[in-house]
Formats: sequence, structure tokens, C-alpha cells
Amino acid sequence: MSLVVQKFGGSSVADAESVKRVAKRIVSYRESGHDVVVVVSAMGDQTDDLIDLAQQVSPVPPPRELDMLLTAGERISMAVLAMAIANLGFEAQSFTGSQAGVITDESHGRARIIDVTPGRIRSALDDGNIAIVAGFQGVSQTAKNITTLGRGGSDTTAVALAAALNADVCEIYSDVDGVFTADPRIVPSARKIDRIGYEEMMEMAASGAKILMLRCVEYARRSGVPIHVRSSFSQHTGTWVTDAEIPEPFRTETLKESPVEQPIISGVAHDRSEAKLTIVGVPDVPGKAAEIFNLVAEQEINIDMIVQNISTRDPGRTDISFTLPMTDGGKAIEALEARKDTIGFDHLRYDDQIGKLSVVGDGMRSHPGVTATLFKALSDEEVNIDMISTSEIRISVVTRSENLDRAVRAAHRAYGLDSTEEEAVVYGGTGR
Amino acid sequence: MSLVVQKFGGSSVADAESVKRVAKRIVSYRESGHDVVVVVSAMGDQTDDLIDLAQQVSPVPPPRELDMLLTAGERISMAVLAMAIANLGFEAQSFTGSQAGVITDESHGRARIIDVTPGRIRSALDDGNIAIVAGFQGVSQTAKNITTLGRGGSDTTAVALAAALNADVCEIYSDVDGVFTADPRIVPSARKIDRIGYEEMMEMAASGAKILMLRCVEYARRSGVPIHVRSSFSQHTGTWVTDAEIPEPFRTETLKESPVEQPIISGVAHDRSEAKLTIVGVPDVPGKAAEIFNLVAEQEINIDMIVQNISTRDPGRTDISFTLPMTDGGKAIEALEARKDTIGFDHLRYDDQIGKLSVVGDGMRSHPGVTATLFKALSDEEVNIDMISTSEIRISVVTRSENLDRAVRAAHRAYGLDSTEEEAVVYGGTGR
Repeated sequence: MSLVVQKFGGSSVADAESVKRVAKRIVSYRESGHDVVVVVSAMGDQTDDLIDLAQQVSPVPPPRELDMLLTAGERISMAVLAMAIANLGFEAQSFTGSQAGVITDESHGRARIIDVTPGRIRSALDDGNIAIVAGFQGVSQTAKNITTLGRGGSDTTAVALAAALNADVCEIYSDVDGVFTADPRIVPSARKIDRIGYEEMMEMAASGAKILMLRCVEYARRSGVPIHVRSSFSQHTGTWVTDAEIPEPFRTETLKESPVEQPIISGVAHDRSEAKLTIVGVPDVPGKAAEIFNLVAEQEINIDMIVQNISTRDPGRTDISFTLPMTDGGKAIEALEARKDTIGFDHLRYDDQIGKLSVVGDGMRSHPGVTATLFKALSDEEVNIDMISTSEIRISVVTRSENLDRAVRAAHRAYGLDSTEEEAVVYGGTGR
Repeated sequence: MSLVVQKFGGSSVADAESVKRVAKRIVSYRESGHDVVVVVSAMGDQTDDLIDLAQQVSPVPPPRELDMLLTAGERISMAVLAMAIANLGFEAQSFTGSQAGVITDESHGRARIIDVTPGRIRSALDDGNIAIVAGFQGVSQTAKNITTLGRGGSDTTAVALAAALNADVCEIYSDVDGVFTADPRIVPSARKIDRIGYEEMMEMAASGAKILMLRCVEYARRSGVPIHVRSSFSQHTGTWVTDAEIPEPFRTETLKESPVEQPIISGVAHDRSEAKLTIVGVPDVPGKAAEIFNLVAEQEINIDMIVQNISTRDPGRTDISFTLPMTDGGKAIEALEARKDTIGFDHLRYDDQIGKLSVVGDGMRSHPGVTATLFKALSDEEVNIDMISTSEIRISVVTRSENLDRAVRAAHRAYGLDSTEEEAVVYGGTGR
């Protein structure tokens, strides 16, 4: 008997009707002979509503209490889902993160999973139950406080449970059919990817593809759990994220026929959530860059790309530019301005009208010329490149925000990712 | 330093504004030098809303899951209250029933507290925190499932915690000023009772006074915790429920001046929630009554008063009448009809237009004539008595429902409980 962990996001359980629909889906899976563990997010906008409520009593709620509050959301959805399943004549039991053995560190609001001890889940399965587990939450190892895992936390819960239970697959359900070669809202001819490796998926996630969070894919890679990203609104096969073979009971005709030779480029991701900060006129002496980036790191700001140039104003000085999450812009500026004299720079320039385009593909390792194709495509579209960074399987460029959509479409076309008309129908048939 | 447990009901924390008001009250108490543990119910109608949600997916939700769902209500209110307190510059930590060490039996929906092990609450207090505890919930001893305590459960949580922490007082806040000699909506001249013994309060609660549930007073009597019932909308002293002296730091001028001689009768309670079921024509042979009441007990129906008469139809047979909660009427009728032939009765008569009036007073033990006063008062009002039952400190009578208000007012007047005009102002000043 195979064991499947299925994760349903808030949009899949937005109201009582959706919960009943998801319950039917889970039950039909159980009927076909699989053991099933379900991880569920809070219903619809519940989490946002709870944050609103918190804001009404405190502009800066204590993180411990905010976590206690927010975890009520999954408590509601998991109990209601268990009821809906019981109403179809199956045994179901719900478990909080703490009951499911999701042990985290002490960082409220962005806790990391340290260990998963799913003894109660295993017993529930052995007793013939479908186990429903609250996503997004755990209990801290030392203080035994309730913690939340931060954005995309329910996906991480699902993968971590799948790993701890040695599940055959972790299915992540959302309202789209899988991972696409580009965001279909920008590139209508984008194609669903049938299968992608962990590392590529991590680069896609880090580059702005929103369907899976980086942490969740990292966790899956470490434990080797295959992820199947699919829609809760259709029965289509979605996207398999794995470096290994797709497990036998889940292999479909379509997947068997997929070409032996993988495409060089898997997809084009984009990200409009970053800003660029330029420190103008930094004295060109050793240690200055370290001083600056230590200061930024102290603020717990993740920086992405860095460029250093001879200053346009003074040849004895340099300009240092880096990109960072737009939401951290104010904090970075404040910290740097406070140390302006020590560092000795001239002034700061802040630009939040940038966009990042990333081309990801495992084939890059062995195929030269991939970069040249991108630059030619962008040049043909008269899109200017501002910054560049690369990894072994990714090229990212920063452009003006208003050129980003055009750049994404051009790159998608240049790498031959556009679907034929026939394939496009598949995506057209998705939707909610 | 004294320790106070304060319980706030759903109407006291109905929305963000009420929560902030309650937070200020708690903080001012903390500032005056008391350690404070707060027990809180779900906000406003949250529990009813959650029950509605459950009904939308399942007409008969599994009790384990219903408890899991409902406990989300207190999780929200306690976290929000802790945030509101933190926003006033005080340290506050919230705890679920399970975290607070409220251990119950395994009966979902009406669990009984077996033990309270408040180690985490004690530590939180020692660290200078105000501890906020979810009312109404606990964790079952064996299966470690989340349980709820049933109606009035938050009051029981508060008393149980007060007992386990050896608190000086358990304050129960609601939207009325205390326990009254009768329901002021029926008897406008009813007076607030300054002080009442546990046993009298238990009789009042069992007789329909809704301010405290029977279980909570029972628990307080066993552990000797003084309860102070008061309004969260005023600063007035409420009603003290205790057999001992009122603890020194809480003794007020008013209470010191209260008469040494206690009144014979403490109050008049009424109850319109019962129905009367008459089994007509039961064979008058030994064991028939036992057969009937065993059958009713198997349905987990609590019966209240019982009367047996020679049958009006057949002198060789008897009629047996008993009162039971109106909500159990259908269940009782169904069970009895199913065994009609075995028991051998003629037919059933069901009457839900009855009302019960109870006169409660510790003075009854030593004062004869109390019953006569009641019967005379009711006879003067031409109120017919249908059934009678008594305890050492209570007389209850059943009348027609439409005569109940008149009967309550007559009894209240006959025992000299009506307030003077001056006293009545105190009650007039209450309200929300």
C-alpha cells in the first residue's frame, strides 16, 4: 500500500462547499487503496482576517501571540475537513502541528522545522484513519510554544511530513495545473512542465516563480521526496519535481512518452519584488565592501545581486549597487545613512522600478551559447540590461520594470518554449 | 502578593474595542499589585458561528472534531487579549487548556476536569507575566485529544485553575452586577445578593439561575475557592460566593456592614426549560418505576421531579409524571413508545407549557413555616401548584408557564426580598 501526503491551500478550502469537494477527492484517493495524510491551510482569507484583528488591538503584536492567533486558522479548516470526510463515511482525525510532531526552532513567524516525530499520525493511519494535519505550524523545541513557519509554510509541512513518513509522493494542490515555463498571465503560450529536477525548481522558486517556496523544494531535495504540483480543480497530471524516476503507481501514459532528451532551458521566471540600492562614491580602499554588507546583514536583509563600478563622479571612488527585497528598502537606507560618515560614501540612490528575469535550465551546464541567445533576444527587443548574475543553471538580468513583460516573452520565444496552438488548449482548459 | 483569577465571558470580549477595555481593567488590577491569571471565552458569537460552519459540512459532526473546531474560538480571543495587554506595556502570555494543564476525561463536548497541573502558568507568573488561559477546553488524559467542557465550561476552568494555583479569589465577570434575589427582568424590585453560601448557590443554579453553572459552584465548594461574580461594565462589588470570610484585601465597607443575621430566603429562581411527561396507566406492580427510569437513564436524560398517583382512569393502575429538559422530550417519548408493550402503560401525555419556581435559603433548615408562606402567597395569586419537591434548603413547585412570572413576583414579595426604592437605583445603574 502506498502512502500519499496531499496538501490543499486556502483557495482549495475557501468555504464549506470547497471543503466538501476536497473531501470527495481525498476519499476517492483513499478508496483506490492509498493511505492518505492531508495537510491543509487556513480557509480562504482567514489568515488575513486574523492579522486584521490583531492590528485592531496592537500595531506591533508580540510574535508569540501572533503565532498563537494565526494557528487558529488551520485548526478550523482541518477540523471542518475531517468532519466533511466523516460525513462521507470515512474515518478522519485532525492533528495540530504540535500533535503531528512538527518540532521547530524558537523563531516565531518564520520558524524552521528541526524534526518531525509523526507517531500519532502513524497510529491514526494504522487504525484506518485519514489523518488531517494543520499546515504552517509547529511547536518550538525548548519553550514548547506554538510557532508558524512563515510564507508557504504549509507546503513545507507537507514535504517534511512526507519525508518523515517515507511517503511515496507529496502532492501540492493549488488552483493552477502545475509549474509553467513562464507565468501564463504574461506569456499566454507558456507550457506546463511535466517534470523538473529539484535544483532547477529551486532556482525557479528563488527567481520569483511563486508556485513553490524555495524552502519547501530544498527540504524535498534533502529528503528525496517526489513532489507532484497539481490543480485541485482538475484531474490532470501536474508537474513532477524529482531527480529520480516517477514512482510506478503514479506513472501515466503522457509521462512515459515524454522525450528522453530534456530541454536545455526549463523555464523563464520573473520577479518584480526587488529594488536596487546604489551607494555612490565609496572610498576605494580594502574592507569597505565588507563593512557595507556586514551592516546590511545585521539588519537581516537578504541581498541578491551585487555590482561594483568605478564611480562616475570620482575615479578614486567606486559605486556599489545591490538588489534587495523592496520591503526592506527603508530599513537598509536607514542603517546606511546612520553610518554614512564612517563608511565615507557620498550619497544613496534607490530605485524600485526594476524587474528581474531569470532563465533556468539544467542543460546550461553542457550547452555553451545559452547566455548569448538571451542577450540577442533582449537586444532585438531593445531591452537594456542593468545587472547580470549567473549560477551554473541560471542566468538573471535586471531591466527596467516596464520592459520586463516584453523581455520575458522574448526570452521564452528565443529558447523555443512557446507552445503550439494545440498544447495551449490544455492551459485554456484549466482555470477555476 | 495576592493571586486573582479573572474570567471574562464572550460578551465582555465581543470585539476589538471590548478586548481593549478588558485589557485596561486587567492591567489596572496588575498595577495595584496582584498576580493575575485571566480565563477567557470565545469572542461574542464566535462559538455559534463555528457550530454553523460545522453544520454546513456535516449534520452530525464527530465530537472529537467538533471540539477541535470550537477550541479555535478561545485560541483567538486569548491571543488577541494578550496582544492588547502587551500594547499597554505589560507582559502577557496566552495558554491553551492543554498548555495550562487542564486534564479532562475522554468525553468530547462535556468533558470533566480530572486534574489541573498549571506548571507553565506558575512559571509565567514567576516571570512577571499576566497569564491568559483559554476557557472551556482541556486535553484528555489517555488519548491526549482536545476536549471541551460544555456549557459554562469557562467558569469551571477559572475555578479549577484558581483551586490549583491556590488563588485568593476567582472573579467571574459578565454583563450583570452579580447574583440577584430573582431575575430583574421579571422582578424589577430584585436585589443584588452581597454574599451567598456554596450550597445555596448550587440550589439556585440547579433551579434555573443562569449566572453560574452548577458544576462550577460544585468545584468551588470542593476546593473552597471564593467566587466573586461581578460586572465587567462597572466597578461595583458584585456577589461573593463563599462559606468563609471574604479575604481581607477584597473586603469593602459595604460588605463589612452587611447584617450579621442572614436572611432566611436568599432568592427565588425560575426555570422555563423543562417539560412534563406523564405515563398514563402503568400496571401497579413492583419494579415498573425502576424499569421506566432505567430506560430514561439509558438515554442520558436527567430527570428532575417525579410524582406518582393512582391512575385517574383505572384504580389498579398508576400514572407516573416526571419533568425533564424540554430538549430531551422527543428522545424520551421515542424510547418509551418503543417499550410500550413491555412496560404495559396506556399512553403518554407531554406538556411543555410548565414553569418551575424555586425558593432557596439556608435559613430554611432552622425556620419552620417557610413552605406555608410560599403556598399562601401562590394561593393569594390564584396560582395552581402541579408538582412539588423539596431539599433541605429549597422548595420547588411546578405551575402553568403563563402563571410563572406572577408566581415569582408573589414569592419574592412574600419573603420580604423586594428592595426599597433607594436600593433599586443600584440595579438601574447597571446595564451595558
